[in-house]
Amino acid sequence: MQVREMISAHPDVQGSTADALLKFIEDAYDCAQTCTSCADACLAEDMVADLRQCIRLNLDCADICAAAGAMASRRTGSNEAVLAATIRACAEACQRCADDCQQHAEMHEHCRICAESCRRCAEACEQAISQVQ
Amino acid sequence: MQVREMISAHPDVQGSTADALLKFIEDAYDCAQTCTSCADACLAEDMVADLRQCIRLNLDCADICAAAGAMASRRTGSNEAVLAATIRACAEACQRCADDCQQHAEMHEHCRICAESCRRCAEACEQAISQVQ
Amino acid sequence: MQVREMISAHPDVQGSTADALLKFIEDAYDCAQTCTSCADACLAEDMVADLRQCIRLNLDCADICAAAGAMASRRTGSNEAVLAATIRACAEACQRCADDCQQHAEMHEHCRICAESCRRCAEACEQAISQVQ
Amino acid sequence: MQVREMISAHPDVQGSTADALLKFIEDAYDCAQTCTSCADACLAEDMVADLRQCIRLNLDCADICAAAGAMASRRTGSNEAVLAATIRACAEACQRCADDCQQHAEMHEHCRICAESCRRCAEACEQAISQVQ
Repeated sequence: MQVREMISAHPDVQGSTADALLKFIEDAYDCAQTCTSCADACLAEDMVADLRQCIRLNLDCADICAAAGAMASRRTGSNEAVLAATIRACAEACQRCADDCQQHAEMHEHCRICAESCRRCAEACEQAISQVQ
Repeated sequence: MQVREMISAHPDVQGSTADALLKFIEDAYDCAQTCTSCADACLAEDMVADLRQCIRLNLDCADICAAAGAMASRRTGSNEAVLAATIRACAEACQRCADDCQQHAEMHEHCRICAESCRRCAEACEQAISQVQ
Repeated sequence: MQVREMISAHPDVQGSTADALLKFIEDAYDCAQTCTSCADACLAEDMVADLRQCIRLNLDCADICAAAGAMASRRTGSNEAVLAATIRACAEACQRCADDCQQHAEMHEHCRICAESCRRCAEACEQAISQVQ
Repeated sequence: MQVREMISAHPDVQGSTADALLKFIEDAYDCAQTCTSCADACLAEDMVADLRQCIRLNLDCADICAAAGAMASRRTGSNEAVLAATIRACAEACQRCADDCQQHAEMHEHCRICAESCRRCAEACEQAISQVQ
């Protein structure tokens, strides 16, 4: 992604790229893709009936990551309270999804990778929230 | 929308449709469409330069409404903390967008309708949150 | 939804609301919600392993309906070729999803409703395409 | 992104990762972010009134890229005709958006980067379509 280049070129940014937010944007788009992919891979597993909760968490996490990533990409005007609340919801979603995926990490490689991606995004959320407020 | 019919037909629901959540789903999808439409109508106004903040709030509101509406549509397993945090972010977005659109309500009919749609969704958020937790 | 009111208030529309597109927008948002809901209800069924293909089609259909509904809501400038191609993809997705859901319509009420919603949206796509081009 | 790792771990893939599709997924998520960012940067420009068409194309392109990227991430069951039609719409959107952004590339760095990202994704679309069909 060219998140830094894009945000740096924004007329309102003037050098203040807010690095924690940049990292969050990348991690959020990554996590949206990974969770979408993990939900689908879980669906194809023989033991799909045991992975329902994991699929549910994956789909929810993908939705909020996509919304938060898009929202964090905007720098025109301001919407800090909304952005902070959205990243907080994203952090919660990533944490829950990471916890569930971790439980199947040894059995399913896609869950292991997804747990990692969710933890990374949850961490990026925490850093970004402190920058937004 | 056939939200009630769909949720009633869900194998895990068994009669407990959680009516405030049903209303929220409808209002969230409606608000996502209205905000997408209002952002675009603001963009076409002669005074677009004065409507930048409104467009920003509209786009953010559309994103979180779409994510929250999809998330609230799911009843498999459970993800209450994430759903509650997401609806809270949605309430915040709708409130801010309603406030800004209201300021241009007399001048722009699309902002008047959008303010109404956002207020309705913000109210539905409040009702839904108390049901989720 | 207040699709007609919103589009009528758009500065570039000037009375030409393009009714088939208005109907498509409503049907596309409805279908996005219904397919999201049906994917989740299928996931909760005892026979989830037999509904994998249906869930896949539901999720794909929800994604393209949401994108197409948002795109069709815009009237600033023009982007006809892209809109037409997107609605064509949406028609294809709705048709496939309707066909698959129809096969489980007698067993699962959510699939019956979803098949109906997809057929309605597929029909709205056809009407809208002839208006866009 | 960890697209290759995720798809390789999918139970139905068995070594056939369909490399052109993998590249498309990455480029589509990238392009969704870049177009979201470019729409917002254009909105903040002094000459926003001259960038309306560019913003419109950016928003449409972001929507279809996000939908297509998610859809292409799924490998459970099959949905080739829908995926192909969606990637075709994505190619069209990327091409139009690239052409418009290119016109402002010398004046606005964000448009230059976005034109590049759109061209890359349009090219990835062409490669992916030939693999899907």
